[in-house]
This record gives sequence, C-alpha cells and structure tokens, in this order.
Amino acid sequence: MVPTIEDVRAAAERIKGIAVRTPLLRNDALDAATGAKVFVKAECLQRGGAFKMRGAANAIAALSPEQRARGVIAFSSGNHAIAVSTAAKLFGIEATIVMPSDAPKIKLETTRGNGAAVITYDRVHESREEIGARLSADKGAAMIKPFDDPFVIAGQGTAGLEIGEEISPDIVFVPASGGGLAAGVALALPQARIIAVEPHGHDDIARTLASGSIQRNAPGIRSICDGLLTEQMGELPYAIARGRWERAVAVSDDAVRRAMKFAFRHLKIVVEPSGAASLAALLEGGVDVAGKTVAIVASGGNVDVETFTEALAA
Amino acid sequence: MVPTIEDVRAAAERIKGIAVRTPLLRNDALDAATGAKVFVKAECLQRGGAFKMRGAANAIAALSPEQRARGVIAFSSGNHAIAVSTAAKLFGIEATIVMPSDAPKIKLETTRGNGAAVITYDRVHESREEIGARLSADKGAAMIKPFDDPFVIAGQGTAGLEIGEEISPDIVFVPASGGGLAAGVALALPQARIIAVEPHGHDDIARTLASGSIQRNAPGIRSICDGLLTEQMGELPYAIARGRWERAVAVSDDAVRRAMKFAFRHLKIVVEPSGAASLAALLEGGVDVAGKTVAIVASGGNVDVETFTEALAA
Repeated sequence: MVPTIEDVRAAAERIKGIAVRTPLLRNDALDAATGAKVFVKAECLQRGGAFKMRGAANAIAALSPEQRARGVIAFSSGNHAIAVSTAAKLFGIEATIVMPSDAPKIKLETTRGNGAAVITYDRVHESREEIGARLSADKGAAMIKPFDDPFVIAGQGTAGLEIGEEISPDIVFVPASGGGLAAGVALALPQARIIAVEPHGHDDIARTLASGSIQRNAPGIRSICDGLLTEQMGELPYAIARGRWERAVAVSDDAVRRAMKFAFRHLKIVVEPSGAASLAALLEGGVDVAGKTVAIVASGGNVDVETFTEALAA
Repeated sequence: MVPTIEDVRAAAERIKGIAVRTPLLRNDALDAATGAKVFVKAECLQRGGAFKMRGAANAIAALSPEQRARGVIAFSSGNHAIAVSTAAKLFGIEATIVMPSDAPKIKLETTRGNGAAVITYDRVHESREEIGARLSADKGAAMIKPFDDPFVIAGQGTAGLEIGEEISPDIVFVPASGGGLAAGVALALPQARIIAVEPHGHDDIARTLASGSIQRNAPGIRSICDGLLTEQMGELPYAIARGRWERAVAVSDDAVRRAMKFAFRHLKIVVEPSGAASLAALLEGGVDVAGKTVAIVASGGNVDVETFTEALAA
C-alpha cells in the first residue's frame, strides 16, 4: 500500500511526545551565499540525532500490543538502529539490532546504550538479510524496515508536514538512498519541487528516475555519506518518487565536508556527512535557486569526532 | 535606571524580526546524566551566533532617528561586536567596532563581513576606553555598551522570557561576566533560582555576591572562555543580581571542553567555550538538580576550528 498525505497526518498524531518538532533555522550567510531564502530543517536536533526516529516511532506505534510484546528487529548501519532502539526503549519493548561491524562507533555505542541487543556481522562475508530473517523466525519479532514500509515513509513525512506548517517552499532538497525520507516529504509537500541528493558515484536514483525502473549501485562504492549507501531504493519510495521527484543531484565527499564546515561555522549545528548532503547540493550551485524559498533537510548529526574533525580541517 | 520585566516585554516587541526565537532543546542523555529534566536554550542558534543580538538590537531600536543617522560604536572582543555590526546592518546604519587584535579570528572576520569598520588595538599597551571615547567624540556616534545599559539588559532578558513561555524552570544556569544576560534572565523569570557561571580563577561574581560590593579580577587571568573575562560586572547588572542570583559557580577549562564535546555528541549543537560554561556547571554536579526542571542558556557558538577541535580531542 502506497501511503498518502493522510497517512503522514496520522503519523504526526501517533508520534507526538516521541519524536520532537525540530526547528527550521534561518541564516544570513546561507541566504547571501545562495541568493535564495533558505530554511534548514534541523533533523540533527531530532531525538536520537536523526529523522529516523519519526518513521521508527510511527511503525512501532502502529504494531498491536501482541506484536509489541514479541519485540522488534531491525538491521541498519546507523541512524535507523538508533531510532528503533530509542523508540523501543520508550515503548518499553525489546529490540534486536543487526549492524555491520564497521558501522560508525558512535552509532554502535548509542544503540547499545539504548539497551538494544546488538548483533554485528561482517559486511563482506555475511548476509544481514539471512541473519535478520533467522532472528525474526526465532523470536516472532516484527521487522522494522528502514524505508520500504508505508508506516516508516509516513513517519518520515512528518518532517515535511512541519516544514509546510511554517513556510511554503518552492524547492526542497532531501538526501535520498532508500528513499523513505524524500518520499515522505514529497507526500507532505505536494506543491514543492523535490530534489533528491545522493553521493557522487552512487547515483542509482538519477538513473532510476531517468530509466523509469529501479536501478542498482555496483557493490563496493565508497562515500563519506555512510547513511546513503543503500544498494537500491525501495519499491514504495519509488512508487511515490517517480511522479513527484524532479531530479536527483550528486555530491562529492569534498562538497559534503565543505557543507559540514559551513554548518559548523554559520549554522552552529553538527551534521553528519549524509545529513550535510542536501546543504552541499544547495551550496554547490547546480540547482538554480535564485529568489526562491528553499528548504533543506539536514537529516542527522551522528558523526564521529574523527570524521567531523577532518571536515573542519578541509 | 534599573530595568524591570516590563522593559523585557517591551524589548521582545522591539526586536521581533531582528533577533529570532531560539529552540529549547531536550535530550535524553542530558536528563540521564543529571537526574533532572533539562532544557537547553540554544542561543548559539540566534542570529549572529549568540544571545548578544537581543541586547544590541533593542539598544539600537531604542535610538532616535537622529542618533541612528550618526551611527553606533561598540567595543568588544567578540559576540557583542558581531551583534552590534549585524543589527546596524539590518537597521541600515554605520557601525564602528573597537576590538582587541588578539580576538578570535572568526569574530574579527564576521564583524568585518557585516560591513562594520573594525579598529583593532593592543590589549596590553592601548586603552580601548580611550579609543572608544575619541571615536565617539569625533563622530557623535552612540556607544552601545555590552552590558551596563538598561536596554541591553532588557534585550538579553528576552531569552528568559522565551524560556518562561514554554516551561517554568526551578533553576536556570546562565554564564555571567559583565552580567547583562544573567540579569535580564533573572528579571524575566522571577520564580526561578538563578545560578551564575563564571570561569575558574576569574571568580569576581562569587566574591561580589559574598561581599555585597562589586569586586574585580586581577589582570592577566586566562581562561578558554574568551567571552567571560570582563574585569568586573556592571553596576546595573549588579543592582539586579544582588537580590536575585542565588550563587555563582566556577568552571574549569577542562570542564568547559568536556561540555563542548557533550554538546557535539549528544545535543548536536556547536557551542563556544563561554557558551558551554552553563552546561559545564550542570554536568560537573556542584549544584543539586535531582528531580528539578532546569534550564541552561547555551549562550553562543562562535568558536574557531582550532579551539573546537581541541575540545573534541579532550
């Protein structure tokens, strides 16, 4: 079932008191640099440090009491893990999270800190799908998918709903990989032009929109944007995207680092690489935004000291 | 004239559209670390990166058109310089800012970037008061004082007013040096216990509150908190403080660095050393906050890459 704006509105009611309303920041330097009127949806200030809390909370809230009693499972390299473990803790249910052993330390530690059972696996030699399926069968726990789920998409869309309650953006830049956030935001803001932002070289979304069918990335492509490396986008996000996303633009690692430093210096927020992708796309100037009202989703802030320090040194 | 809560309310009306309403952030890790219900007033997200915009905007807005036409002058090592230059730009008037040549680079550059004429002086061999007085006499420009001015205090108090519109804090931690912010916040939140936070070794406020008369700091004391090194607090702030501030607590440079890192890791905001002082005082545990509703003012975020990186490495 493809969700609609009504599902996003229902999600907003369901996640009240779990996810928080994040601020929409204005900045003189950002307006001056772009010639646009820019609003930054600071999802790094979301509970758990990323937008993922919205979708996780909506998906868990939608489970029956019987399902919740059996706990939940998720696999994720990062922010979805933090979100599901935080939401599970708030609902008082058990969470098992399957994470790659090379996930950012801060994300592994935060997930464990939320009381979740963390199972790590080797990205190269083990299949997370097999591990997840086995655990799910063992425990009867519900799998909370990171993006290809109508409740998750509707939950992420609440970020867009909040934007629309304060402004009417002409253009919205949203980082995209699985596509849940950018699909949800597209539902919530039907009048806005949606620009999906993906890592340079990991440009499946541009090819997907151009070809009219879901394309994959070759394995092994690296990017500083650890949250934007899904092999291919989800079917449900694509069903929304194909009629609504205007285009996808790609950002380089260097552009992302520059955006992280800009956010440090001018916006005073901590954004992780994936969270800075939308700001990078805006600042690089590939999309004509002159005179427009623009929203960018700074989707998360869970970044290691090392990665952040490197970006500041650039 | 000592300002009152009515002056703070008038300031709030006057600075609408110039200063912004900053968010009051919640964080699970911060509540867990302190046993309190903590709200962070993120003034680093204020226009210009610090609370100083509130007071500067109120003071300039209160000038007559004739006074404004002659421009304004301020002396400041940092955030007051940025605030006055930003507010002057918004009002379309000239600003001359006298700054020590060793002020943080980011603060010098930002002030110049706002179009202000910046005059630097040598802290050791020159008197900023003499330079400022000469300039003021030359141009007939109004001097915008950093804290010992009723309009500036009332403007800073609007941060407290905004806190009070969302919560009723039992205790508020506010960094203090000249005392304008902590005095204004005390006016705006008459029911709250006010804790002033100052740098370790630069403890004039503790001595002032204990002795009942304004005490000075010995010259040459160093602290990472470059915004909290005023020689002595202002007379007007003291007139408010003596009846209202409960006590002053001192924080070490190391505690401030730990707080900056905590804010990076958990709150996802960039705070400068002086802006992290209140968080440091809360986290160090010297004030019993168990079970209380606590507000801390994270007063600014204008910090150099070098200083921030050092704090993250600690």
